[in-house]
Amino acid sequence: MKQHTLLMPLDMHLHLRDGIMLENIASLSAYSFSGAIIMPNLVPPVSTKEELIAYKERILHAVGIEAADDEMEEFSDNGGFEPYMTLFYQNYDEDFLAEVADELTAIKLYPAGITTNSEGGVKNFDIEEMRPTLEAMARLDIPLCVHGETDGFVMDREAEFMNIYESLATNFPDLKIIMEHITTKEAVDMLDKHANLYATITVHHLLISLDDVIGGMMKPHLFCKPIAKRPEDRDALLKVALDAHPKVMFGSDSAPHPQHKKEACGCAAGVFTAPIALQLLCEIFEKAGKLDNLQSFVSDNAQSIYGICPEFKEIILVQEPFKVPETYKGVVPMYAGESIGWSIEDVD
Amino acid sequence: MKQHTLLMPLDMHLHLRDGIMLENIASLSAYSFSGAIIMPNLVPPVSTKEELIAYKERILHAVGIEAADDEMEEFSDNGGFEPYMTLFYQNYDEDFLAEVADELTAIKLYPAGITTNSEGGVKNFDIEEMRPTLEAMARLDIPLCVHGETDGFVMDREAEFMNIYESLATNFPDLKIIMEHITTKEAVDMLDKHANLYATITVHHLLISLDDVIGGMMKPHLFCKPIAKRPEDRDALLKVALDAHPKVMFGSDSAPHPQHKKEACGCAAGVFTAPIALQLLCEIFEKAGKLDNLQSFVSDNAQSIYGICPEFKEIILVQEPFKVPETYKGVVPMYAGESIGWSIEDVD
Repeated sequence: MKQHTLLMPLDMHLHLRDGIMLENIASLSAYSFSGAIIMPNLVPPVSTKEELIAYKERILHAVGIEAADDEMEEFSDNGGFEPYMTLFYQNYDEDFLAEVADELTAIKLYPAGITTNSEGGVKNFDIEEMRPTLEAMARLDIPLCVHGETDGFVMDREAEFMNIYESLATNFPDLKIIMEHITTKEAVDMLDKHANLYATITVHHLLISLDDVIGGMMKPHLFCKPIAKRPEDRDALLKVALDAHPKVMFGSDSAPHPQHKKEACGCAAGVFTAPIALQLLCEIFEKAGKLDNLQSFVSDNAQSIYGICPEFKEIILVQEPFKVPETYKGVVPMYAGESIGWSIEDVD
Repeated sequence: MKQHTLLMPLDMHLHLRDGIMLENIASLSAYSFSGAIIMPNLVPPVSTKEELIAYKERILHAVGIEAADDEMEEFSDNGGFEPYMTLFYQNYDEDFLAEVADELTAIKLYPAGITTNSEGGVKNFDIEEMRPTLEAMARLDIPLCVHGETDGFVMDREAEFMNIYESLATNFPDLKIIMEHITTKEAVDMLDKHANLYATITVHHLLISLDDVIGGMMKPHLFCKPIAKRPEDRDALLKVALDAHPKVMFGSDSAPHPQHKKEACGCAAGVFTAPIALQLLCEIFEKAGKLDNLQSFVSDNAQSIYGICPEFKEIILVQEPFKVPETYKGVVPMYAGESIGWSIEDVD
């Protein structure tokens, strides 16, 4: 049976939420990842040192708690997990950033109102207004993670944002800018245009196009922002992921919502992939004959780009069918009830 | 208070389903329309004279029944309603068509598997295979109604079908071909290219774009096939509808599903608009200063194109807010719970 080992997998874009949801799902990520970049879009968003430290403590507590019931038992006792914390972008002054720098790994910028809990985001992209903050971040070597969508037509939002990426990249050449969860060939093309632009890619955007979301039946559990685009966009994403382009990292954007909020009249955006991401990635990379590149995509590139050294963790995957549970603690995962080709055999 | 009278409104594309659903919702159409082209995509599809006659009888029975409860009482005693029957397209011989011609108004062609209950549709569009049937239809003056979508990428399916419309239109110049529920500027452009191409347009495609379906929250009650397209497509549809282009007719494509099939993991396609269509059309046409053109769009054009003479019915609408019910007999309508600008005041 084919087997593949991944060392220190990292999820460079993760939503852990808060409260009961956090306690329910955090251990699913901690089980198979060494660490994850934690999104700050709580209500209210994480924007002070105190909130950031307190949120990190709540995450570590959620990860550390013993399995409360049988359902989660297998995910306990999973070794170390580092929550790489982020602040919600606003114009911060340099003194504040210097003081908080040791506690955070990046700052996440949302355009106002563009996705879940982003109402307090950036309303326009006035470079001069943002200059003091972004220059301070560059000096302090704090990367800027960006949800890159305009408020235009849903299929054009990411492509339309490329002007803003260009403007940020050229105005702040010393700032590391991560184009988060890219979904278009336009974003892929940007990677080689500016030295300081990087990207994360989700596993679902490597697998689905808009056809999977609304081409047959409508699939709320595949509804996310940015929405999956055209097949040729997916092909462009696959190419740089499978080749482990050095500026590209895995970031699941795994985003849990309670089942009743997904299967409803106004379904919330987000695909929940945390517990199946590595298995799916093995399947994708193995099918393409690129399994040797997965280590770079899922960890090494991120270590280089962010300059982080995660604790040792070894995940052994085997090419054995895994039936995805219908729910994990009330959250419906991608491919619920379906069988995928790889399983996690062991975690050290 | 502004008032507007419509004479003999016609819904040139309607799904009435069968069984309990038929009995529940047929009177909603019969209340405000003089007649409707009834889609044949039952299980199994309507494809014999006996099935067609029996289905028409079931419709007339459903329309004629007294209101079973208070909820529906206002929709009873509504005067005449003519179900203009259609057969499900397959290759029929001329003798059969001649025999059934008096009982039907059109034949509806579905590409196989393209929408609800269309599995038995046309698998390829081999003109020579279809020639005997389509030439017989032309001789018998039976229009061909077409669901014009390929099995390509969801946003391209209708535009990709234009080649097939061109081929049908040029190979069968004496056949009336109705492009059903068009959603793109490509289809609008076809109207003036071929004398024998006509179109129906729904009310929801005059109102929404893909942004309304998946641009904010995901809205299952706005999910339909063909999917709503780009804002510029909607603008092209609005132009020909508001101008009452003589080759364009109103067809609601109102397609009821039980609530639990819409708000579910794999939501069925269809928007339910039958009971609010005329009110919405008044609002759209009045806002654009084109109320005088509505009569043509909603009845006169269809009478000319199909050569039909509906029974007299007069609908008086007033510019008074109408709160759309949350459900009609378990079916959630478009804009459920919201207020629209026009109401039906009286029906004669």
